[in-house]
Amino acid sequence: MKGIEKPWGGRFAEETDRKVEEFTASIDYDRHLCRYDIAGSRAHCKMLARQGIITAEEEGQILAGLEGILTDLEAGRLELDSGLEDIHMAVETFLIDRIGDAGRKLHTARSRNDQVALDIRMYLRVEVGQIMGLLERLQDAFHALAKAEMGTILPGYTHLQKAQPVLLSHYLLAYWEMFDRDRERLGDCLKRINVMPLGSGALAGTGIPIDRDYVMRLLDFPAMTKNSMDAVSDRDFIAEFIFDAALIMMHMSRFCEDLILWSTDEFGYVEIADSFTTGSSIMPQKKNPDVAELIRGKTGRIYGNLMTILTVLKGLPMTYNRDLQEDKEPLFDTVQTIGTALSILSDMTGRLRFDAEGMRAQALEGFSTATDMAEYLVLKGVPFRQAHGIVGAIVASCIESKRALDSLSVEELREFYEGFDGDVYDCLTVEASVDMKNVPGGTSPEMVAKRSREIENNGE
Amino acid sequence: MKGIEKPWGGRFAEETDRKVEEFTASIDYDRHLCRYDIAGSRAHCKMLARQGIITAEEEGQILAGLEGILTDLEAGRLELDSGLEDIHMAVETFLIDRIGDAGRKLHTARSRNDQVALDIRMYLRVEVGQIMGLLERLQDAFHALAKAEMGTILPGYTHLQKAQPVLLSHYLLAYWEMFDRDRERLGDCLKRINVMPLGSGALAGTGIPIDRDYVMRLLDFPAMTKNSMDAVSDRDFIAEFIFDAALIMMHMSRFCEDLILWSTDEFGYVEIADSFTTGSSIMPQKKNPDVAELIRGKTGRIYGNLMTILTVLKGLPMTYNRDLQEDKEPLFDTVQTIGTALSILSDMTGRLRFDAEGMRAQALEGFSTATDMAEYLVLKGVPFRQAHGIVGAIVASCIESKRALDSLSVEELREFYEGFDGDVYDCLTVEASVDMKNVPGGTSPEMVAKRSREIENNGE
Amino acid sequence: MKGIEKPWGGRFAEETDRKVEEFTASIDYDRHLCRYDIAGSRAHCKMLARQGIITAEEEGQILAGLEGILTDLEAGRLELDSGLEDIHMAVETFLIDRIGDAGRKLHTARSRNDQVALDIRMYLRVEVGQIMGLLERLQDAFHALAKAEMGTILPGYTHLQKAQPVLLSHYLLAYWEMFDRDRERLGDCLKRINVMPLGSGALAGTGIPIDRDYVMRLLDFPAMTKNSMDAVSDRDFIAEFIFDAALIMMHMSRFCEDLILWSTDEFGYVEIADSFTTGSSIMPQKKNPDVAELIRGKTGRIYGNLMTILTVLKGLPMTYNRDLQEDKEPLFDTVQTIGTALSILSDMTGRLRFDAEGMRAQALEGFSTATDMAEYLVLKGVPFRQAHGIVGAIVASCIESKRALDSLSVEELREFYEGFDGDVYDCLTVEASVDMKNVPGGTSPEMVAKRSREIENNGE
Amino acid sequence: MKGIEKPWGGRFAEETDRKVEEFTASIDYDRHLCRYDIAGSRAHCKMLARQGIITAEEEGQILAGLEGILTDLEAGRLELDSGLEDIHMAVETFLIDRIGDAGRKLHTARSRNDQVALDIRMYLRVEVGQIMGLLERLQDAFHALAKAEMGTILPGYTHLQKAQPVLLSHYLLAYWEMFDRDRERLGDCLKRINVMPLGSGALAGTGIPIDRDYVMRLLDFPAMTKNSMDAVSDRDFIAEFIFDAALIMMHMSRFCEDLILWSTDEFGYVEIADSFTTGSSIMPQKKNPDVAELIRGKTGRIYGNLMTILTVLKGLPMTYNRDLQEDKEPLFDTVQTIGTALSILSDMTGRLRFDAEGMRAQALEGFSTATDMAEYLVLKGVPFRQAHGIVGAIVASCIESKRALDSLSVEELREFYEGFDGDVYDCLTVEASVDMKNVPGGTSPEMVAKRSREIENNGE
Repeated sequence: MKGIEKPWGGRFAEETDRKVEEFTASIDYDRHLCRYDIAGSRAHCKMLARQGIITAEEEGQILAGLEGILTDLEAGRLELDSGLEDIHMAVETFLIDRIGDAGRKLHTARSRNDQVALDIRMYLRVEVGQIMGLLERLQDAFHALAKAEMGTILPGYTHLQKAQPVLLSHYLLAYWEMFDRDRERLGDCLKRINVMPLGSGALAGTGIPIDRDYVMRLLDFPAMTKNSMDAVSDRDFIAEFIFDAALIMMHMSRFCEDLILWSTDEFGYVEIADSFTTGSSIMPQKKNPDVAELIRGKTGRIYGNLMTILTVLKGLPMTYNRDLQEDKEPLFDTVQTIGTALSILSDMTGRLRFDAEGMRAQALEGFSTATDMAEYLVLKGVPFRQAHGIVGAIVASCIESKRALDSLSVEELREFYEGFDGDVYDCLTVEASVDMKNVPGGTSPEMVAKRSREIENNGE
Repeated sequence: MKGIEKPWGGRFAEETDRKVEEFTASIDYDRHLCRYDIAGSRAHCKMLARQGIITAEEEGQILAGLEGILTDLEAGRLELDSGLEDIHMAVETFLIDRIGDAGRKLHTARSRNDQVALDIRMYLRVEVGQIMGLLERLQDAFHALAKAEMGTILPGYTHLQKAQPVLLSHYLLAYWEMFDRDRERLGDCLKRINVMPLGSGALAGTGIPIDRDYVMRLLDFPAMTKNSMDAVSDRDFIAEFIFDAALIMMHMSRFCEDLILWSTDEFGYVEIADSFTTGSSIMPQKKNPDVAELIRGKTGRIYGNLMTILTVLKGLPMTYNRDLQEDKEPLFDTVQTIGTALSILSDMTGRLRFDAEGMRAQALEGFSTATDMAEYLVLKGVPFRQAHGIVGAIVASCIESKRALDSLSVEELREFYEGFDGDVYDCLTVEASVDMKNVPGGTSPEMVAKRSREIENNGE
Repeated sequence: MKGIEKPWGGRFAEETDRKVEEFTASIDYDRHLCRYDIAGSRAHCKMLARQGIITAEEEGQILAGLEGILTDLEAGRLELDSGLEDIHMAVETFLIDRIGDAGRKLHTARSRNDQVALDIRMYLRVEVGQIMGLLERLQDAFHALAKAEMGTILPGYTHLQKAQPVLLSHYLLAYWEMFDRDRERLGDCLKRINVMPLGSGALAGTGIPIDRDYVMRLLDFPAMTKNSMDAVSDRDFIAEFIFDAALIMMHMSRFCEDLILWSTDEFGYVEIADSFTTGSSIMPQKKNPDVAELIRGKTGRIYGNLMTILTVLKGLPMTYNRDLQEDKEPLFDTVQTIGTALSILSDMTGRLRFDAEGMRAQALEGFSTATDMAEYLVLKGVPFRQAHGIVGAIVASCIESKRALDSLSVEELREFYEGFDGDVYDCLTVEASVDMKNVPGGTSPEMVAKRSREIENNGE
Repeated sequence: MKGIEKPWGGRFAEETDRKVEEFTASIDYDRHLCRYDIAGSRAHCKMLARQGIITAEEEGQILAGLEGILTDLEAGRLELDSGLEDIHMAVETFLIDRIGDAGRKLHTARSRNDQVALDIRMYLRVEVGQIMGLLERLQDAFHALAKAEMGTILPGYTHLQKAQPVLLSHYLLAYWEMFDRDRERLGDCLKRINVMPLGSGALAGTGIPIDRDYVMRLLDFPAMTKNSMDAVSDRDFIAEFIFDAALIMMHMSRFCEDLILWSTDEFGYVEIADSFTTGSSIMPQKKNPDVAELIRGKTGRIYGNLMTILTVLKGLPMTYNRDLQEDKEPLFDTVQTIGTALSILSDMTGRLRFDAEGMRAQALEGFSTATDMAEYLVLKGVPFRQAHGIVGAIVASCIESKRALDSLSVEELREFYEGFDGDVYDCLTVEASVDMKNVPGGTSPEMVAKRSREIENNGE
């Protein structure tokens, strides 16, 4: 009796069903790992040689072989077919084809379980680095816009009802803060990604006298895993990354929601550049904020990916189970979606044109300085809750008579409360309203400029 | 001033950003809709001619052009590039290239909004039909196995603890019932898929005197949508289908969980054919139930897809918003995953080999006929709750003395309760236990055979 | 040796940990099932008597005992403490306290596994009936409003950009259709809820000669479960109901999104009655659409409940596992949330006041009749794609010169296309635009009135 | 005209609908925030006095009033009714009732928007601290067990198939590592929770000259928020915490899955103490691992809570929207669930009894030292891939002849490969197999003891 023609086929009597080969293969999508798989194999090979487990000659053959395979793979000269199962088996198979017996030694003291853990960690630390860079670029775009629009007044909203006037720059820097937390969160995640798992074997470690420390240093990892069973079944870092991505998408979805609102006729606060919009197949007049809508929509995709990985992991017995293979597509899709969305939103943000006049005009409507009038009364000694009631009554009366707050004479105001004076009008302009919010984190020009300088100086 | 070179470009001054073209394009994945798009266009074209909106000659040109495009697309002779945006625009562009002005008339009285709704509904009703067929095939596989294993005893479990003996066939037919509900659920969903939306225009209907009824009949729809605004923004049927798929996957995940457990050494109830398993890259002895694990794992993927579409839809203002484009990838992925999983599980189920002896031996362990002993006492007049207590005490004593229930003599039994007689042993065999569960839906051979005949006769 | 003081304690040597009692108890929330548990027990008891398994006297005692317990429970005179575990054990314990030995017979031929399945199904069929009634009430509210607003013009939106004028009634009836699908979907679900599981025992059926058919008829079920193992582990109907609820919430979230937008100053289309809004603790002028926001937000809650039940079910081995207890809280929460949201939205909808003038004025802006102009050209023989281009160019020129479409003279129009005539203006009013959409499902007054009559006549 | 009787009712003409009051009230569940609300108010009051905004006398009255309210609330002497809306309004209302005008001044320079942000952050930093403590206790329980079981052999599994022998202690410490990452992750989250938002007002800051720095110090925050608009709408820290909790639950669900498997008759590796299990209402012999099942099931609940908060946040316009109120119930439920589960699992883990003999016996089965045989050949110079094939063939032949690996004679082994020697048997015992895995992170007793000492010394 002889096993089947698979690298693991020794004990098998029957060929793998062709549908099963396709169903279980990951080779379609794990090409993303290709370069990391080869880099990891190179380090593993060097270590095997250094430990005397393979000869220097074998080391040379393997390194040269891997080099060639990488070149050919990147040039598209090697076909990755589902019979090869996955990228690890594919590379090993190609290697044996090229260099024979030395190639059969590469998998010494290694299992696909620790190998794939290594590959994903190497892949993801690079991608997270890129995404952190893209986040920084997006923060820069918001900050640049905030600096350019420093005097612009925006009606600030709560419940999508006009609340109080704010600086547009203050609004934009709110997003800067969100993306900064996102970046910090990715940095924390990176600590947990950047741990070297090779040497964990299938689950128990290995009986071959390897040097994990050397591999760790070769591959520039600051730490290595401390328990082989945990190392081969740990996908926490993938779930954590996808969660971090979900929050990034959520933040972008909020900004996109505002962009969509603000680029309606009815708001009219912003115009998105033509090149970031598309038209309608039937309605000739349409110019649609498609990019903003798609970013908002793609939030669903990342939430879905998060749910996928969490569902996969729930209730799995120790240690590695094949279910874990389902970690890759949601991961790759998340990396790609978040990268594209960040990049395109940076570009689009840089080309937004705001209608400062229109926003200021709207900020004057809707009694958005009513709180300032109440605070005026507080500073005159009226208890706040009473001041709130007085101004509420004034607003109600203005709504009925369709008048604005600052159109009431001092006499009229005094019908509601004796203590009003002529200086009340000083706090009813939108500029005064904004200026007065001069507390740390507030929207006054002074405070916003201060925060901008802090950002300028050290990004913190 | 002249618009840009897009079918909708008349009012645009600036070319679409290349990244935006890629970001907003769906052409990569909506090739799945190609044949339905063309079939829908053919019907639309026939209707336009019949209504005198285009001439018979134009009709002929368009139909011939579409025919050619379909042939070329299926043969891979037409390149779908992201500059073409989506399948609808691509087909129209190809058509105009081929037949000129007549091609420019095809989009009369139509918007991409109603067109894509039509395409997805046509696509999905076909796919749902296929999936229902695959479910039936899977039910057949379970039923065939149930018939083949009619006498086999299985220890039934609750809380994964042995509970009572059952027939393996009863267990298998439990899955038949689950998949039958799944099929029923898809049938219900199909009613809501199979509704014709064309003629809803962008959102309002159309001012061109079209005949929706004729298109409905041409395309073999039993009904048409009754509100144009609803029609272009309704994706309920997609969410409902993905939910139905989620339950199907969940049911398969439960069976796969049992397969994985039962094919351990420790249980040893079933052997999966070699061709449906794979080995280990490092451990030569391993034969892993990868297919079952992957089906279980892919449940996460479908749950994720469900969460994606639900997130996309939440809180969207009326009517069509570009976010809706994100409906397609989760849909296509769900269709493919569920189809493959159903198909491969049918094949694998047909080749399972059960260890009847081993299962029977295990059913004898674990006091699995204790409930039968309690029911024996009930039939002797002991209140059930008291009978439960008596047998519980007997079990506790057996555990301590490491004996089986049927090894106790009548005298020993009478220490716990006077009324025991020699006939008690009749209910303590696994066969007797199973035979006695002779109520509808119960596990007695008679009832299971009856259910099998019902299934045989009319699948109900 | 003697078991512990639990109804199932016979074989146990050690008392249950107090924390464990609390952790595993469901009694806090399964009071919702109380009346159904007792109704089910009554039917079970009658059947036991009819089969001669208990005596008529015992039957009488049990029925009277249960009656008393129900009365006392509903009056709050019985304390449900976590030592009682769940409602089933509590009722049995109270019963034994009251009537002694006869009470110990009630659990004959029954397990908590089939009992809880019965209780939830009885509970849910009642609740689904209520929810279907609330949906109908909400549909009525939308239909009443649609009739009241029959002539009102609304600017229809796609991508939240003005697209084409529509009737407000058409918009409102779009929601009628959504809620109608929701009702249909619940009706389908009800078929799968309304199946009688009692008699399935723990998993295998029972050895006691019960009459399931009689119980089914007593409890007014049209069908009974056909496989005991499936019956005790099936929670499909709960997942399906929560999914149906998720779509209902999603539909409400879309309407609420529009309400929130439309009640901004900037849109100003609708005013929500004061009694359905709240104010701000600090800003005296604020009137916030809190109810609409909360309904939108609570969509998340139902999505979460769906994810909960799906996660619980994934990969569970057969048959009953304690994980299934986690089905109840998401179910009860969903029932309550959906009921309250439907009810309050009905009330609020009935009190909305629309600004017909404002909406009409906005519909005149934004070139929303550009498509009508293109269709005008089509009816003059211009291929649609070319007509789209011509009108696109006219729109672009109008934007530049800040003019409206209907302000261009025929001569000016002819610079873009020779064939324009004086009759073009007939299609540029919003009324004409709406009137022309006279296809089934379109927004013309005729078609909307027709649909309203259909709804009036038979709800279909 | 006079406003309604609400703290914000000045501009309202119509009373709030009673159903709306209930629907929008959060008072049912925000009692969790009570003590933090009062602590925050105390600090705010001290700051107002220090800034001269209120007098020292008013300060004294307010502080005394708040003290009394807290005492009465905790003693259950104050009724929280939904007319009071939320905890913030309730406390203010009680205060005004008690001390009159001074109470009306407390809300000066504060909005519920920044107040609730403060309360949740104060609440959550305390709860996260507790949970980190509970995680540590759970880690200690695992470590203690690992030390107690230091010599115990366990068959290690991949794909739930026996893979290689490992130490039970190694398995247990794998969980120690998982929970350690969880703790680290919570520590990272805490940095983002522990930021002081008060002073952000409704969204813009305040015009009253407050001292945020002083409040920050009084409340022992290391940092404060830097943008008021971000501060009132940021719920990232809640989502992040719930995600961290989801991973903790997932880890526990994996251990519980193993416990459930291992406490089956078929595995029989572990016995859960009676006091952590429950019985069956019908089957007298049952002892079910309910606690483990419920923890596994409750994973679904936390996943659901995560999906809830993410759905709520998606696409919300800036800044505060009432949807955000839906953050609280998932948060409180998560805190409670995770706390209880951690605590009960710690207790249960401490009382597990393992069957060392049984596990060792199973480790001998299933060819779990086949990899060691392959590595033996590697050390003799056979390329690994070839060694894998040789051993695979030996395993296949053993399966056919139903023999164990170590039962083959050297001669028999040499039929497969010439180079086998008598020393091969040295690597085929489970003890030798474990001993040889002497690489960092491997399962050898030396390495496991080393890791245990590291944990002992500094938890790292």
